[in-house]
Amino acid sequence: MQEKILEEINTLLLEKDSAKLKETLAGENPVDIAEIFCHLDEKIVPRLYRLLPKSLAAEVFIEMPSDLKEALIASFADREITETMSELFYDDAADLIEELPAGVVKRILANTPQKDRAEINKLLKFEEDTAGSIMTTEFVNLRTDMTVGAALDYIRAVAPDKETVYTCYVISADRKLLGLVTALTLLTADVGKTIGELMETNVIFATTATDKEEVAALIRKYDFLALPIVDSEERLVGIVTVDDAVDVMQEEAEEDFAKMAAITPSETPYLKTSPFSIYKTRIPWLLLLMISATFTSMIISSFENALAAQVILTMFIPMLMDTGGNCGSQASVTVIRALSLGEVGWKDVLRVLAKEVAVAALCGLTLSVVAFIKLMTVDNFLSGGIAPLVAFTVAMTLLCTVIVAKLIGAFLPIAARKIGLDPAVVASPMITTLVDAMSLLVYFSLAKALLGL
Amino acid sequence: MQEKILEEINTLLLEKDSAKLKETLAGENPVDIAEIFCHLDEKIVPRLYRLLPKSLAAEVFIEMPSDLKEALIASFADREITETMSELFYDDAADLIEELPAGVVKRILANTPQKDRAEINKLLKFEEDTAGSIMTTEFVNLRTDMTVGAALDYIRAVAPDKETVYTCYVISADRKLLGLVTALTLLTADVGKTIGELMETNVIFATTATDKEEVAALIRKYDFLALPIVDSEERLVGIVTVDDAVDVMQEEAEEDFAKMAAITPSETPYLKTSPFSIYKTRIPWLLLLMISATFTSMIISSFENALAAQVILTMFIPMLMDTGGNCGSQASVTVIRALSLGEVGWKDVLRVLAKEVAVAALCGLTLSVVAFIKLMTVDNFLSGGIAPLVAFTVAMTLLCTVIVAKLIGAFLPIAARKIGLDPAVVASPMITTLVDAMSLLVYFSLAKALLGL
Repeated sequence: MQEKILEEINTLLLEKDSAKLKETLAGENPVDIAEIFCHLDEKIVPRLYRLLPKSLAAEVFIEMPSDLKEALIASFADREITETMSELFYDDAADLIEELPAGVVKRILANTPQKDRAEINKLLKFEEDTAGSIMTTEFVNLRTDMTVGAALDYIRAVAPDKETVYTCYVISADRKLLGLVTALTLLTADVGKTIGELMETNVIFATTATDKEEVAALIRKYDFLALPIVDSEERLVGIVTVDDAVDVMQEEAEEDFAKMAAITPSETPYLKTSPFSIYKTRIPWLLLLMISATFTSMIISSFENALAAQVILTMFIPMLMDTGGNCGSQASVTVIRALSLGEVGWKDVLRVLAKEVAVAALCGLTLSVVAFIKLMTVDNFLSGGIAPLVAFTVAMTLLCTVIVAKLIGAFLPIAARKIGLDPAVVASPMITTLVDAMSLLVYFSLAKALLGL
Repeated sequence: MQEKILEEINTLLLEKDSAKLKETLAGENPVDIAEIFCHLDEKIVPRLYRLLPKSLAAEVFIEMPSDLKEALIASFADREITETMSELFYDDAADLIEELPAGVVKRILANTPQKDRAEINKLLKFEEDTAGSIMTTEFVNLRTDMTVGAALDYIRAVAPDKETVYTCYVISADRKLLGLVTALTLLTADVGKTIGELMETNVIFATTATDKEEVAALIRKYDFLALPIVDSEERLVGIVTVDDAVDVMQEEAEEDFAKMAAITPSETPYLKTSPFSIYKTRIPWLLLLMISATFTSMIISSFENALAAQVILTMFIPMLMDTGGNCGSQASVTVIRALSLGEVGWKDVLRVLAKEVAVAALCGLTLSVVAFIKLMTVDNFLSGGIAPLVAFTVAMTLLCTVIVAKLIGAFLPIAARKIGLDPAVVASPMITTLVDAMSLLVYFSLAKALLGL
């Protein structure tokens, strides 16, 4: 669909048909227009942008990637910056300020009306990752003594400047949150009734300091279109809308994926990130993990004599370590997600460990029986020379490793959360190191005992 | 907050104050009531449920976990089943039918009015994971010749039976989708204007066969409150609302987390899953991975003589394998997420591989230099006896392993997607096996060549 429009626009550009270009662009979705702009020559974009109706232009602007925003602002006259800024919602304007380089920001703020600048500054002061940093201050507030008719008239008047009119908040004279009414209620109610009679008073809200992930979780849990945000004195100061909550959910999931793969999260799309930037997100973890493998080297080194006597034991080191690693990450990812979704907390630590021991016993028994049979048949056929006692040592090590790995994998994330660390960041490097070390220790100790090395 | 209400309800139950109980429950959010019910004795729940106003009762019912739904239905008279079913939205009713055991479903359907049953059956026939399976048929449709006043009157009349009234769809006489108007447009427009004059005609839609993940992605991309769904003849048959899209996004992310940790995805919360059920989601992958480690055993076995001559080489096997595994999973998780988000496709395969080679070269050089220095200093101090040529062998192996691991990690998910397999499922077991085998092969080959074994 977009390819067709892109082609059409390119044709119209060649034909210099501004009237038709204007008409075509005005009929498109702002998200699509922003994408189309990304596929055009940067020099043409300002010309096309000026063909857009004012309010659509602002919507397109917000959807563009940073580099294009910057290029466009560079092409703007001061007056155009003022126009664009006054069309933007305050939360979008605040995001813009945070996203662009200082030099550009300076010029933007110099051309932003004083009143807007004050509102934007209010939003900029909230800490990253809090509800304050993602909320918008442009919501509809009503008073209890308004009639439905008066409320509808008010909504009609203020609608263009509000992010949503579908949930309206009822506040007291000192701006305390009293309740809410939905547009649906207003539409279907008797116009003579008052807001006070109609409002729901059991309102779920968050504060400006609430973690944005928690805000997104509340919106998801209750299927809200928006969540009201209050300040420390319980005055209503903003709302977070469902579309922003959706973005938070997606970002947080991507961050967790990155952390579990031992990558520092980044928001830039993969294909747009330079190899050196990708390198920087990956190398610290690789170095950390490589250096922490010093433990495994030391363990092997201290059992060098045993290994020299039975080189065959080396054959199973990779399998034992991989199985331990897999068991550990199965448990840790499960627990990390359960923590993220609020299904599990520190109070459940014993229940989690008990469950993992049970699962580990089942997995360990299955794996060790299968491994013993496989070693005595297939592996003996393929490589030869595996004595029953060696196979038994490997099988017993598997059983112990699986149990240890699942316990470490389940415990570390809960413990990390308990002491205020990010479970996903802590888990992946520590679990590998600990599980590797434990499985080798168990393996060589059992080998020494059982094989008399 | 919920604890307080739970306590209050328990007190009121003891005092047998039904009037006060009724009032307390009626003021609560249905999601919270469902959660409170989970914490009460199953025998009390039906009594409390009957105190709820009809429409609230249906909302609470839908939010309850399956076991509680089943228990409640068992306590219902046939008449109560009919009442509940006629209050439910069709998509919720269809989910209920799919969720409960056949015996219960039979009784439910026997007590569902014929007309509702027909609508529910329509939804049940769509394949899992399609837009059809998550859409609702209860949306507001308008005609082009309606005036705004008539449309608002119509919305007021039908609102109680519709999932959303905030986006209304305009259809032709043969039910083809012509456009949409938002409630905001209707509220702010002149009541005499017609829908045809006001509607947006550039409507983004999906078909009943569209993958539900794609539907969620569209809703997220365009910040929609709902997406219209058409059948194969382009007739409007349903809508997917943002709250259902949010659930799809969350489910899909959880599934990907599970797959990347080599776990079969399951929808049951962790603490509610029995150890045996958890075992079943984990053991197939552990067995598969353990058996695939046969390759690494065979490789080590074939270099047994070299290892016997230089037992010290064993010391670095865990570090080499772990680093390879980490590099592979960094690349594969990055690419799997980029595939999921539609940032990358088969057409980009060469760009991705070129990028990963560059990143791998940077990571590999850093790691091999650090490893060489560490081996000659720290490790020689801790364990002793590491010859420069051994350290060099390890460093070179690291460099090769990192490059191979990143290439395999990046290529496999794209290739899997290309041949129609799930990148996340294919990647994790195959990458470990391939990277382990490759790193050992490189290690021993280099060792033989450089150390003359």
